[in-house]
Amino acid sequence: MSQALDLLRDLIRCKSVTPANDGALEILQDFLTPLGFECQIVTFDGDGSYPVNNLFATRNRGGRHLLFAGHTDVVPVGDEAAWTHDPFGAEEVDGVMWGRGAVDMKSGVAAFCAALPELVDSGEADNGTISLLITGDEESDAVNGTVKTLQWAKEQGHQFDFGLVGEPSSAEEFGDVVKIGRRGSLSFTITVAGEQGHVAYPHKANNPIPVLSKIAAQLSSEPLDEGNENFQATNLELVTIDVGNSASNVIPASGRMSGNIRFNDLWDAFKLEYWLGQQILKVPANGCDIELKIHHPVSRSFVSNESKDVDLLIETVKKHANITPERSTGGGTSDARFIADYCPVAEFGLVGKSMHQVDEHVPTAMVDRLQAVYTDYVRAFLDQKS
Amino acid sequence: MSQALDLLRDLIRCKSVTPANDGALEILQDFLTPLGFECQIVTFDGDGSYPVNNLFATRNRGGRHLLFAGHTDVVPVGDEAAWTHDPFGAEEVDGVMWGRGAVDMKSGVAAFCAALPELVDSGEADNGTISLLITGDEESDAVNGTVKTLQWAKEQGHQFDFGLVGEPSSAEEFGDVVKIGRRGSLSFTITVAGEQGHVAYPHKANNPIPVLSKIAAQLSSEPLDEGNENFQATNLELVTIDVGNSASNVIPASGRMSGNIRFNDLWDAFKLEYWLGQQILKVPANGCDIELKIHHPVSRSFVSNESKDVDLLIETVKKHANITPERSTGGGTSDARFIADYCPVAEFGLVGKSMHQVDEHVPTAMVDRLQAVYTDYVRAFLDQKS
Repeated sequence: MSQALDLLRDLIRCKSVTPANDGALEILQDFLTPLGFECQIVTFDGDGSYPVNNLFATRNRGGRHLLFAGHTDVVPVGDEAAWTHDPFGAEEVDGVMWGRGAVDMKSGVAAFCAALPELVDSGEADNGTISLLITGDEESDAVNGTVKTLQWAKEQGHQFDFGLVGEPSSAEEFGDVVKIGRRGSLSFTITVAGEQGHVAYPHKANNPIPVLSKIAAQLSSEPLDEGNENFQATNLELVTIDVGNSASNVIPASGRMSGNIRFNDLWDAFKLEYWLGQQILKVPANGCDIELKIHHPVSRSFVSNESKDVDLLIETVKKHANITPERSTGGGTSDARFIADYCPVAEFGLVGKSMHQVDEHVPTAMVDRLQAVYTDYVRAFLDQKS
Repeated sequence: MSQALDLLRDLIRCKSVTPANDGALEILQDFLTPLGFECQIVTFDGDGSYPVNNLFATRNRGGRHLLFAGHTDVVPVGDEAAWTHDPFGAEEVDGVMWGRGAVDMKSGVAAFCAALPELVDSGEADNGTISLLITGDEESDAVNGTVKTLQWAKEQGHQFDFGLVGEPSSAEEFGDVVKIGRRGSLSFTITVAGEQGHVAYPHKANNPIPVLSKIAAQLSSEPLDEGNENFQATNLELVTIDVGNSASNVIPASGRMSGNIRFNDLWDAFKLEYWLGQQILKVPANGCDIELKIHHPVSRSFVSNESKDVDLLIETVKKHANITPERSTGGGTSDARFIADYCPVAEFGLVGKSMHQVDEHVPTAMVDRLQAVYTDYVRAFLDQKS
């Protein structure tokens, strides 16, 4: 069994459902320290969330500085009875390893770590600086994880030239997608208040539901944009609309709807708040009080398309996978959005199909292929002139 | 103190919040029996509701048959601390009697009963048949009250020429309104089912909220009619719209809205169901499953405008109140809708302003005026040729 699979097996056997660590970060610390990495497990808490352990490991100073980012926490098992393999057993059967985190993303972390000994032994790792930021909370609040560890690292004097995130970026086959950015995410609530009353006497009341539903219809009818070179179109989804009145003879006092916008780099929080306000104004208020509330923090959109390090990553993946990876900005959010505040960032990893599902699994050969990509990429990255 | 006020005081002191009786019907039985009424307290139960006591009292056979209908149950006291008088004390202060039921409608029942001794003593009551149907459940389920007592009375061979309901019909001053009909009431629920998913991948889901809100907007924008000679316009109010999704990154599977239609005699349940279906069809379903459910039973609309007994009632009220009462079909529903299945029916009683409120009260002089109207009306009614 390869070092990557050894590590992956040990990591899967840690029951590190967010925010539990169960020894996962220590396994990495024990692996990286003999390779010359200074390792620190830093714990952050507060800001309305639980305490989280994060590993920051760094080797050498000087030269180009690559940050690899990942997480060892996993989502819950879900319906455990539906699993055909122990979700924390890391059983290997016919070239497939089973368990929670097998793709998202203990395999990415294991593959990157296993890529390092060869580079250390050859002296190539000494050409620059390699750091790893492995958080224990990417899957849940993400309040005391990557964000605070990046701030802490900055205060320690670290400046990164590029961030590589090991999330499972591939869509259908290994290497078909490199994520060069992500859409932003903004959630909002709109409250419409009228006046309560009896259905038989509507002139003595002011039903907020017509205004509420017309605003909802308005928000569902206007596309925000058509996308651009790097991004698909911005999309708004209403996720709920609620009044909560159980009395069939009562006109309710108020109602509310909430929605989420996944937006490209044509937008930011201010522009979206203005746009939402304009949509609301298109509906006659009919005497109702209407309140728009933006839920903070808003995840901004980012794209690292212009980076030569992205080009290098694309070239490296292409060489190994024999396909030209798509430069994608689709899908949900990841911790890459936090790294984008410090340096260009891209994401490359395995096919994510079984992530978050029952019977999460990974072909073992894929983990070794990912390690090979990472080895080549780190070698080439450190070899570049800064 | 008049007989009417004596009776009213005794009735208010019964804590007859639906479905409690607390001796109220027995007080009436004891009053009516010496006047020659055959009294029966009939109890009905089942059909998903609690047992209810109802008094049916009838005197004489032959001639024209008048049915007086009312109820001795009252709505709950509400915030008892906010009352300035004991809600079951029947305190009389400066010509005003206080208590729950003072207008809705122990006063109407007391005034009608007190109208009878004079007519019995004079022999005028022998010109026809007088019946009273006093239910113990008008304010709540109304399942085991007037409906079943009417059916029972029919089985006993009773056929009524006209129904007079003693509900507080007057709006601003005594005698300004006689209710000659009521709108119908239909409640409905519309469910829209799409497909659940993640907000970042809307193409893999089908959000039901746009369709839900467009149907709601459609229902709120189309007037059903403009009213007619007897009725105000039919009115639809959406009373709730709900999805109940608390996850801001999840596209919900389904949502629903409920509404109530108060409708005039241009409509019935079948026509309204068809109309609702047509409105739903105006909104593209976008692959959603849409279900319309009518809540049964539907209260039909009725109007007794063509009855000579209504004309007689209007004339009698006009003589006593010195104003011409409006023939109204507005407001909520009452048990008159059940009586309308058997005979023409109208409602006349006190000003209802403080009904269902804290500090419900009635000017004692008004109760005596109401008794005088009832006495004159019964006399004239029995004197008509059938």
